[in-house]
Amino acid sequence: MKLKPDLVVEHVAGQYPVFVSARWLDGIALATAERTKRLVFVTDNNVDRLYGETFQATLEQHSVEAIKLTVPPGEASKSLRVVNELYEQLLARGIDRQTTMVALGGGVVGDIAGFVAATWMRGIDLIQIPTTLLAQVDSSIGGKSGVNIPGAKNIVGAFWQPVSVFIDTSMLETLSEEEFTSGLAEVVKYGVILDAKLFKLLETQFESINQRDPAVMADIVRRCCQLKADVVRQDERETTGARAVLNFGHTAGHALESVFGYGTWRHGHAVAAGMMIAARMALQLGRVKADFVERLSKLLRSLRIPQQFPENRHDELLAIMNHDKKARNGKPRFVLPTKIGHVELVDEIDSNLILSAMRQSSESHE
Amino acid sequence: MKLKPDLVVEHVAGQYPVFVSARWLDGIALATAERTKRLVFVTDNNVDRLYGETFQATLEQHSVEAIKLTVPPGEASKSLRVVNELYEQLLARGIDRQTTMVALGGGVVGDIAGFVAATWMRGIDLIQIPTTLLAQVDSSIGGKSGVNIPGAKNIVGAFWQPVSVFIDTSMLETLSEEEFTSGLAEVVKYGVILDAKLFKLLETQFESINQRDPAVMADIVRRCCQLKADVVRQDERETTGARAVLNFGHTAGHALESVFGYGTWRHGHAVAAGMMIAARMALQLGRVKADFVERLSKLLRSLRIPQQFPENRHDELLAIMNHDKKARNGKPRFVLPTKIGHVELVDEIDSNLILSAMRQSSESHE
Repeated sequence: MKLKPDLVVEHVAGQYPVFVSARWLDGIALATAERTKRLVFVTDNNVDRLYGETFQATLEQHSVEAIKLTVPPGEASKSLRVVNELYEQLLARGIDRQTTMVALGGGVVGDIAGFVAATWMRGIDLIQIPTTLLAQVDSSIGGKSGVNIPGAKNIVGAFWQPVSVFIDTSMLETLSEEEFTSGLAEVVKYGVILDAKLFKLLETQFESINQRDPAVMADIVRRCCQLKADVVRQDERETTGARAVLNFGHTAGHALESVFGYGTWRHGHAVAAGMMIAARMALQLGRVKADFVERLSKLLRSLRIPQQFPENRHDELLAIMNHDKKARNGKPRFVLPTKIGHVELVDEIDSNLILSAMRQSSESHE
Repeated sequence: MKLKPDLVVEHVAGQYPVFVSARWLDGIALATAERTKRLVFVTDNNVDRLYGETFQATLEQHSVEAIKLTVPPGEASKSLRVVNELYEQLLARGIDRQTTMVALGGGVVGDIAGFVAATWMRGIDLIQIPTTLLAQVDSSIGGKSGVNIPGAKNIVGAFWQPVSVFIDTSMLETLSEEEFTSGLAEVVKYGVILDAKLFKLLETQFESINQRDPAVMADIVRRCCQLKADVVRQDERETTGARAVLNFGHTAGHALESVFGYGTWRHGHAVAAGMMIAARMALQLGRVKADFVERLSKLLRSLRIPQQFPENRHDELLAIMNHDKKARNGKPRFVLPTKIGHVELVDEIDSNLILSAMRQSSESHE
C-alpha cells in the first residue's frame, strides 16, 4: 500500500505527510505497520474504548508489537506527574529510539504524547492520530506540545514535528455535541482569517456538517490542515508574527476560559464568543460593516456553536486581557478582521472599546 | 565590542559562535549584556562561590537584570524534581521567551539548564559558559541535554543548540586534580580518534598542561571544540553514525562507571581505562602495533590521568557491555583505533578478546 498524502507540511528540518479520509482506521493501522515493527501508543480511556482495541488488534495482525499506555481523559492529565509516569513505563518496556510513539486521541493526548516523544532519549518518532475535530484541524499540525504546571497552562513544552498525521473524519461521529461544535468554532475561524471560500462552504453546507457527514468533513478538515500548514511554514516557532493570525478570537477567548473555568467551558466556545467580540470591535473601528458581524453570528448559529457568555464580569475579563502575554504597554493586542478571509494584528487597543464590544456580545443574546 | 568567534558550529536550523580565551569573565558578561537585557543564569553552589557573584555584578553594571538560580552540585541534581523546581522559579520570576538562559557551570549544570531552556515555553535562548574542562571540550558543544530518572541516565532530554558558547580557560585553575585530569582524558581521546597533531601537541606540551597554562589550554580547547563541531555537523542527532567515533573508550568506560559507581569514579578516568582496554583489543586484532599502546599509556601517565581500574569484576563488566544500548546480537560494538588519529567502529566483538584486554589493563598496573 502506498498512500498519496492529502498534503505535506514543510518545516525547517524536513516535512511530513497528512492523510485525511473517512472510515479507514484499519488503513491507518496498516500504514503505521509499514513504518515500524514496534510502537507505543498513548491514548485516554474514552478513546481507548472506542478505537484503541481495533487499532491494537489490526496492528498485531500485521505483526507489529503495539504497547498501549493510557492516561485519564481531560486537561488534568497534562501534568509533569503524568509525564513522569509515562517515562517510567517507557523505561520498563525498554522503549528506545527505534520505537515510534503514536498519539491516538484529542488535544490533551497529542500534547502529552508529543512532549514525551520530544524528550524521550532526546526525541523519538511521533505519529499523530487526532480523534477530535479541534485536534484534527488545529493541534495535530504544527508540532506544538505542552504540559501545565500549577499556575500556567502549556508553559512547559517543545516543538516536535510528527513523522505522519493520520486523520479519520468518521471518528467525529462519536464526539459529544459540545466537543464537536467546539472544534467547528476553530473551523469558522480559519474561514474568517484566511479563506472566504471555506466560509462560504460552511454557510452552504451547514446541514451536512451538523450531521457530521464524514466526506464533507474530510473536505473541510483537509482545507483547514492546509491553511494551518501554510501559516506554520511561515512561522514555525512563533518568531515572525505570521502565526499570530491564528489567535483571532483568542485574546478574549483565553480571558473567558480563565474567568469561567477551563473544562467547564469548551475552548472553541470561548473562541466563538471571542470572535464575536473582536468582530464588534472591528465594526466600531470602521474596519468592517454591520453585515460582517451578522454573517459571522448567523454562521455560528447555523452550526449550533454557542456565542454568548455569562455577564457581569467584564472588568475581570478586561484585567486579564491587559495582562495577556502578548499585551504591549499594558494594553492587549487583538487580531481584528477587515473582511471575510482577512485579519490584521492591532496593538494597544483601548479598554472602552473592549468593554463596549463585550456588553454588546452579552446583551445580544439575552 | 564586536568579538570574532574562534569557531562557528553549524547545525540544521542555524549556527552559533564559540569564543575561547583566558581571563575574560568580565568580557563574557559584557558580551552577554550586549545580547539581552534580562537573563536567568543557572549555576551550582561551588561555581557560584567562585564566579557567580563577579558574573552577576558585571552584568548589573551593564544594566542587565540577572536572575540567579542555583542547584546543588553533583549528578543528583539531574532529576525531574530539580527541573520542576526550576520551572516553578521561572514562573514566579515571570521568565518569558524574551529572556535568555545562561548555564554557568560544568556538565551537570549544562545538562539541566539546557533541558529547562529547551522545554520552557517550547524553548528559550541558551548561552553555555562551561567551567570544567570536560564541559569546555565536550558537553557545551553539540546541543545535547539530559536528565536522569531512577534506573536510567540521560534518558530524558532534548537536542537544543545554544545561541553562544563562551569559554574561559583560566577557570580551569580552580578545578580539583581529579576533575581536571578527567577532562584531559577526553582531550586525549580527540587526539586518538581524529587528530594526530593534537596528540603530538599533548606529548610535547604536557608540562604546561599540567600547570594548566591558560593560553596553552585555550589552544587545546579551541582545537577540541572544532573537532567536536565537525563531528556534530555530520551527525547532529546521532542518526548517521558519524558521532559514534566520539565513543572511543566509552563502551568499557560506561561499564566501569556503572560497576564502580558514578560519582566515586570520574567519567574521564573511566574513559581513560576504557581507551587502554580498546587499545589492547586493537593490538590483539592486529589493528595497531605495540608502540601504539605504549604511546597512549605514556601520554596518560605524563598527564597524570589514572588508567588502571579495580580488578576481579571482569565478568560483571562484560555482562554490562553485552547489554549496552549499542550492542548487536548480544555482542558489544567497540570503537577501535588503527593509528593515532583514526578509529573504526567494530561490531560483534568476542567476549574472550574483551576479557583478555581487561586482564592486561588491570595487571599492567598492579
